Amino acid sequence: MTEQAVNSSTRQLDHLRIERPTFLVDRERVANNIKRMVDLASAADVDFRPHFKTHRSREVGRWFRDFGVKAITVSSVDMAQYFLRDGWEDITIAFPVNPRQLSHVAELSEHARLGVIVHSVASSKLLSDLRAPRLRAWVKVDTGYHRVGVDWDDDEGLVAAARAARAGGLEVAGVLAHNGLVYQERTREGVRRVHRESVERIRSARDLLCAAGLGDLAVSIGDTPGISSGGTLEGVDEIRPGNFVFYDLTQVSLGSCSPDEVAAAVACPVVSVYPHRGHIVLYGGSVHLSHDTLENDEGERAFGRVAPGWPSEANLGAPLARLSQEHGIANTGGRGARGYEPGDLACVLPVHSCLASSAHDRYLTLDGEWLDTMSVGDTGDCGAVRTRR
Amino acid sequence: MTEQAVNSSTRQLDHLRIERPTFLVDRERVANNIKRMVDLASAADVDFRPHFKTHRSREVGRWFRDFGVKAITVSSVDMAQYFLRDGWEDITIAFPVNPRQLSHVAELSEHARLGVIVHSVASSKLLSDLRAPRLRAWVKVDTGYHRVGVDWDDDEGLVAAARAARAGGLEVAGVLAHNGLVYQERTREGVRRVHRESVERIRSARDLLCAAGLGDLAVSIGDTPGISSGGTLEGVDEIRPGNFVFYDLTQVSLGSCSPDEVAAAVACPVVSVYPHRGHIVLYGGSVHLSHDTLENDEGERAFGRVAPGWPSEANLGAPLARLSQEHGIANTGGRGARGYEPGDLACVLPVHSCLASSAHDRYLTLDGEWLDTMSVGDTGDCGAVRTRR
Repeated sequence: MTEQAVNSSTRQLDHLRIERPTFLVDRERVANNIKRMVDLASAADVDFRPHFKTHRSREVGRWFRDFGVKAITVSSVDMAQYFLRDGWEDITIAFPVNPRQLSHVAELSEHARLGVIVHSVASSKLLSDLRAPRLRAWVKVDTGYHRVGVDWDDDEGLVAAARAARAGGLEVAGVLAHNGLVYQERTREGVRRVHRESVERIRSARDLLCAAGLGDLAVSIGDTPGISSGGTLEGVDEIRPGNFVFYDLTQVSLGSCSPDEVAAAVACPVVSVYPHRGHIVLYGGSVHLSHDTLENDEGERAFGRVAPGWPSEANLGAPLARLSQEHGIANTGGRGARGYEPGDLACVLPVHSCLASSAHDRYLTLDGEWLDTMSVGDTGDCGAVRTRR
Repeated sequence: MTEQAVNSSTRQLDHLRIERPTFLVDRERVANNIKRMVDLASAADVDFRPHFKTHRSREVGRWFRDFGVKAITVSSVDMAQYFLRDGWEDITIAFPVNPRQLSHVAELSEHARLGVIVHSVASSKLLSDLRAPRLRAWVKVDTGYHRVGVDWDDDEGLVAAARAARAGGLEVAGVLAHNGLVYQERTREGVRRVHRESVERIRSARDLLCAAGLGDLAVSIGDTPGISSGGTLEGVDEIRPGNFVFYDLTQVSLGSCSPDEVAAAVACPVVSVYPHRGHIVLYGGSVHLSHDTLENDEGERAFGRVAPGWPSEANLGAPLARLSQEHGIANTGGRGARGYEPGDLACVLPVHSCLASSAHDRYLTLDGEWLDTMSVGDTGDCGAVRTRR
């Protein structure tokens, strides 16, 4: 990019009067991302239950409502409470039951059609003991990621967990998996291959449970890459992607989206320029961006990409090479650095938008509207959701 | 640790009734850490200006007051405003001037004895243009870390930046450095060596400026490891460590402290146990801990150490081997995993306490008191400091 082009790009966002690191959201791109996923689910005839952990914002949640979305996924009891308060009444908590929040689960189930996961006989019993009649249990299947769940080929474990739930009076809705292995892939083809394997495994777990007399069970899968890359949805009944609402650099690298579809970036003031080192220094560090990294094909790690103005395919910018608590150093090269001046605004395309967003209590849209997140809450009790007394 | 010992340790914190990932602070250890640093500064006859970015809490700040501390360091204009509102009136902002917040700097300087850094002729001019008579400029010296500052051996650059500040009517207080290179060391000896080199370099920069007629300038240095490890303070006038208030695993690994001096940890409910894999799964992920890692001597990376109950030298726990957004997986080994049950409370000793603390709006002391941070603010305007409209 020429010096003149940098200068003109950094002025694109002048109308927002940004003073400090700010999480920006492109409302139009978000709407397009939601619409594309709604259409994909509709074409594949699967239920769409987006994961709301990426945005954690009732206001972004309302944009989903405009597309007819009524069912959501969350990753904590607190998040379920937050979205219930905004009128969402069909919620799956896709996280192992936390024995320290059981009373909240029982209370939630009185107000919402609540899905929970069981991943062992013990967790089935914990949830059964709540005597919450509307609670729906999903058997969490580990299709190879080895985080949480019953191993997909552990026939005995699957049947035992499901039967314990059924015996305890829970409705067993189906099997549910999160295939985190896709994030270890480097190509769209790799993603699709690993996705197909995971879908085959969860279907086999479902077939086993159906054969064991547990009824007509649904298959629910997560993860943005497998779904965005056009992976198979054969035999799948429900999809729960979350990251697609914003996407990020990781998703670009996996082929889930193009840079023109990434809908969030962190705007950071440039505070220093070092053309002889080829660096610009940003007011924007780990506390604003998270400390996640992405490796390129040459094995170099970056904390994001830094562009003047709003990022796009044509304006992807320079690697964010170093990060400390409040400083970010972008490797623009000497020529690039000369285009920037202290006070300019650069935008960091984050490695992982779920983590970068969680560093901010509010987001700013490109048209200047502030969006609250659950860190602020809707009760006026500051910080209540994250750290309630 | 035996199964019985794990069971009894996890009950240590029962009185706190913790439901979700919670940043815990050991008030007694914090007081000891502050006292040790106050005594060290006093013995070395240097001024003590602790960096408050690690805790960001007016309540923890007040504990420093009990030890007679009156001058502080912060890393942003927002943080200076926050602590000024709690009565701190001698504040250095150890971060490059942000051209987008100049009016706030001018306003702050009317209410506080405000130190700012100049790292170039341009930054000196920006600050001079404020015509803020009480503003004190510190020339930021780059002693080899190559983040921000004038290179320590760039005689011309140093004199030019300092003269521009003086010519613009600013009081030039001295030279200031942050020696981030210590964090690349692996031993206490290495830390001391790198620290000595940095101190020699900043003293040489000071001597140059004094010889150039810029007056009797002070030397101010930062970083916890160089100071906690007993590195030289010869010719140093002011120290600005911050992390020592809590310390963390990184500081343990550098020899800055023992595990018995680490004063903060993140309490996380255990949600699943996999003895056959040797794993326990925590409700506690990147959004609660940050994504920073530390490498051990065998080249294995960990996101922290996970212990039942409150961590100590004798209870350091198992490596936190994997982290996703809300899940943490600790590598306890099969025997260790058998000691835990879902619902137990484990404590994660964080890799970097500055980042882990910044993921939480409030902290809980071991005696059950909640401490606000600047994310909550003292004005009732939720999240105002981080994302003011």
